[in-house]
Amino acid sequence: MTTLAALNAMPASDFGAAIAPVFENAPWIAEAVAAKRPLASLTAFHREMMALVGGQSDEALVRFLRGHPRLSPDTLRKGTTAESTAEQTAAGIGALDAATIAKLNVLNAAYDDKFGYPFILAVRCASLPTMLATFERRLAATPEAERAEALMEIEAISWMRLLDRVQPAPTGSLSTHVLDTARAMPAAGLGVELWGQDASGQSICLERFTTDANGASSRDLLGQGRLRAGTYEWRYDTPTYFATKGYPTPARSFLGKISVAFSVWNPEEHFHVPLLLTPGSYMTYRGS
Amino acid sequence: MTTLAALNAMPASDFGAAIAPVFENAPWIAEAVAAKRPLASLTAFHREMMALVGGQSDEALVRFLRGHPRLSPDTLRKGTTAESTAEQTAAGIGALDAATIAKLNVLNAAYDDKFGYPFILAVRCASLPTMLATFERRLAATPEAERAEALMEIEAISWMRLLDRVQPAPTGSLSTHVLDTARAMPAAGLGVELWGQDASGQSICLERFTTDANGASSRDLLGQGRLRAGTYEWRYDTPTYFATKGYPTPARSFLGKISVAFSVWNPEEHFHVPLLLTPGSYMTYRGS
Amino acid sequence: MTTLAALNAMPASDFGAAIAPVFENAPWIAEAVAAKRPLASLTAFHREMMALVGGQSDEALVRFLRGHPRLSPDTLRKGTTAESTAEQTAAGIGALDAATIAKLNVLNAAYDDKFGYPFILAVRCASLPTMLATFERRLAATPEAERAEALMEIEAISWMRLLDRVQPAPTGSLSTHVLDTARAMPAAGLGVELWGQDASGQSICLERFTTDANGASSRDLLGQGRLRAGTYEWRYDTPTYFATKGYPTPARSFLGKISVAFSVWNPEEHFHVPLLLTPGSYMTYRGS
Amino acid sequence: MTTLAALNAMPASDFGAAIAPVFENAPWIAEAVAAKRPLASLTAFHREMMALVGGQSDEALVRFLRGHPRLSPDTLRKGTTAESTAEQTAAGIGALDAATIAKLNVLNAAYDDKFGYPFILAVRCASLPTMLATFERRLAATPEAERAEALMEIEAISWMRLLDRVQPAPTGSLSTHVLDTARAMPAAGLGVELWGQDASGQSICLERFTTDANGASSRDLLGQGRLRAGTYEWRYDTPTYFATKGYPTPARSFLGKISVAFSVWNPEEHFHVPLLLTPGSYMTYRGS
Repeated sequence: MTTLAALNAMPASDFGAAIAPVFENAPWIAEAVAAKRPLASLTAFHREMMALVGGQSDEALVRFLRGHPRLSPDTLRKGTTAESTAEQTAAGIGALDAATIAKLNVLNAAYDDKFGYPFILAVRCASLPTMLATFERRLAATPEAERAEALMEIEAISWMRLLDRVQPAPTGSLSTHVLDTARAMPAAGLGVELWGQDASGQSICLERFTTDANGASSRDLLGQGRLRAGTYEWRYDTPTYFATKGYPTPARSFLGKISVAFSVWNPEEHFHVPLLLTPGSYMTYRGS
Repeated sequence: MTTLAALNAMPASDFGAAIAPVFENAPWIAEAVAAKRPLASLTAFHREMMALVGGQSDEALVRFLRGHPRLSPDTLRKGTTAESTAEQTAAGIGALDAATIAKLNVLNAAYDDKFGYPFILAVRCASLPTMLATFERRLAATPEAERAEALMEIEAISWMRLLDRVQPAPTGSLSTHVLDTARAMPAAGLGVELWGQDASGQSICLERFTTDANGASSRDLLGQGRLRAGTYEWRYDTPTYFATKGYPTPARSFLGKISVAFSVWNPEEHFHVPLLLTPGSYMTYRGS
Repeated sequence: MTTLAALNAMPASDFGAAIAPVFENAPWIAEAVAAKRPLASLTAFHREMMALVGGQSDEALVRFLRGHPRLSPDTLRKGTTAESTAEQTAAGIGALDAATIAKLNVLNAAYDDKFGYPFILAVRCASLPTMLATFERRLAATPEAERAEALMEIEAISWMRLLDRVQPAPTGSLSTHVLDTARAMPAAGLGVELWGQDASGQSICLERFTTDANGASSRDLLGQGRLRAGTYEWRYDTPTYFATKGYPTPARSFLGKISVAFSVWNPEEHFHVPLLLTPGSYMTYRGS
Repeated sequence: MTTLAALNAMPASDFGAAIAPVFENAPWIAEAVAAKRPLASLTAFHREMMALVGGQSDEALVRFLRGHPRLSPDTLRKGTTAESTAEQTAAGIGALDAATIAKLNVLNAAYDDKFGYPFILAVRCASLPTMLATFERRLAATPEAERAEALMEIEAISWMRLLDRVQPAPTGSLSTHVLDTARAMPAAGLGVELWGQDASGQSICLERFTTDANGASSRDLLGQGRLRAGTYEWRYDTPTYFATKGYPTPARSFLGKISVAFSVWNPEEHFHVPLLLTPGSYMTYRGS
């Protein structure tokens, strides 16, 4: 894994070798973006590369799309790029049961036939049911809408591959903010935990704090490069909070501990997640 | 464990023996409510008994409150009613560390001194931090407010003891209803699971269904006497739902699976829990 | 104005004459749908007609779109269908200032040039700023996306013209339901008013009631054919409700009376509008 | 009307004369707080005075409560302080119909009889139905709870009288922030108006702006001493916003313009009012 600084400093040929696998069979993208350096963030690198993808002629774009491998056990058996092999294998494409393989074959054939290029999906983010549901929905789309979706998936795939290879800029972090909307006041003194995964994928508690007078953590969390792409979870100890505030006795309270699971797609961004809380309801959303 | 029908039919003396332990050292309550039979539900039985508690003279009420044991390792060592022993033991009162015992002693002494009766709490619903937070808050209350709280706790304790002894009426059940508020439509075709505990306290999936055209389960869940007091959890498979509907690609979606934990205090009631869902937010509440 | 029953019973030629003006220069739609009678609702009539529109060949569809008049003072000066004349005039197209006319001319020319048919918009629902904002947005769309939007506008225009000519089926109505989410209970005893417009467009109070024990009106409102397409408003007397419940003294309450404005597009549908209320917040949505 | 600076600088006797009428028949409060000067805000002055009120002995407190005039036409006829006369007159106590007077007499007599002092209410914030609903609710309260409520009303009355006499510190202001929660993004480019009252009580538009890239006004509104206690209203031009963003055609959109009415009780505070918006729902609350 390299760093942004190293990426900006290395010779163009090294840069090409380091970055080319981010897209399937399209080394020209890395070559072209090399000339744009230095860039301030992975987000900026990725935006430049996607602009190159989107700026192609219709004909070149279809050729580019056709350069992608099918999602299929056959692909794995016959061999493809190291990246796609790893991704498809991890998504279980190599271990499907016969009925699912048959279904996938039918979908793949119908898709190629309709659109003229293979079905492209960021499989690292998709469970098998999600994958099949998405496949069926997109098979029914218009060619124009489907091309837009294929490009969005390439955006997702290349972004994740970029994150595998380069340390993101340390600009992202997390925060939460709890309002006790029944009293129109910040929920001060509420115990909060932030959970994520350790290197082996085990759930672990990353941070533990009590909300300050403003109902928030007093600082941003997982900042300075500690935030990673992945899934996180806020856990709010609402029963103790309600007991402390003299809300209905715990024996009769409706809400248990509140857990909010969310995904960080871009670890260079800030993710603010407010919680609007009352003894009988809560709301959460991605804030700004 | 007996049934409502049996409770309504048994001789008054048997009724007294069966029900007296629901309150601490106050067999007269069971005796008096025996004359009100038959009653249609446990809720009705409990309401009648609490009316008797609340209808006492000031003097009798204080005597009744004084009949309750302290929350304390000393109580367990010296012996008290079987019910309180079991509850305090399960809440960990018998295994506190020395610092917590010292703190509890100070709180108990200050409380008795201020209010003239022991601190009463439905410990089955309270973790140790909740218990201490509640104790400190209530110690600061006015005598009148505190008496109201003590009665609410007695209501909770006696209700749980009643549920231990008698099968509730089969009138309660659960339901959920999911609205896709971004589109102002029901969220049809969303996978939902209902989780609870089995007899040994292990989390298990009790029901699994897909929302119908109205965004709901097509029938009430855990009805006909299957609902128990305790904690439950709805789990909504929002990522698959969003993928099926063509909402932002899973790779960039903010929300993970949604989990809503809630408590059923009275299994003779219906608990309706709507979910208002968008790709960037959700709200939940106890509906009606 | 005729009725559904009359529409179902009249000779095909009369039906054609009555219904043809619902679409611009496309009498064949009314002729074809005449054969589908009887139909149970205006909604069903409209769905059948839109299916005919959508089922045309590409070529026929473009011809149909070209049959629509431009939104322009020139159109009014040169003369067009009675319906479009009335709609454009009411939307103020005949009384635009010179700068807006110039802008509209530029937009119209660019649109025709790009898409090959005139810009179609349901102007009865659009203020001038909305109209221009929509025009600019759609001018930037892809041909395929824009064709879908044009059809959605034709759906809106024809639906409103149908409502002008035929009494809708008496199946629609309104309801509201107020939850006091801070207490996890229905908001019983809350004063509610329903406002709409009288025949001359003046705001009037149509219904006034107090929520029942379930937090709702005890019956559906404006049912049995009284609901019209148009804008309505719920007004909730939250200050009196909070005062009655002993919530923070009115002098310090944050929320004033709550007003929720909404549009009824199809008066054959039921519109349920819940309000989730606390002293410091509220949420509203189209329920089901 | 004087200023905070003048209040801090004037001789104690002038201060007493200026501030005494803030409380009914209790000039000692103004005298005692004179010695605490200088203070940084009206909020601080008021907090000091309320601390003096709350610090009285039980006996002195009851005497203080008894110093308040009844809410009654009789009070106005017989004469009372200039302040109470003005407030009761403006609240319509001098122009009640016979039935309401009779009802008020019964309530007043029962209240005095139960609590030993007159019913105290900040009538400037209460409509007649609110006033009667509050009276009935409080008549049923316990003596202790009712004393707390009476003090809260005195807090409200004295605060409003203080605001009549002294310019508040210029620390308060308003802000709003609109999130398009369906897209998990700020609602940029939304037209917003802030409405309030002019000197004669007429509704006027005080500010008009378009939300910036963060979904907010780019500066706080009504700052630097322009915020007054009173009622305000945000008006959001959601239909134009949805049209610009390509949300469902206006003809079929559910939500009309959104209006959020709220009260500013303390013009030295900041009032932040977020709006969480989707095409089918919205939520608002007092933020922080």
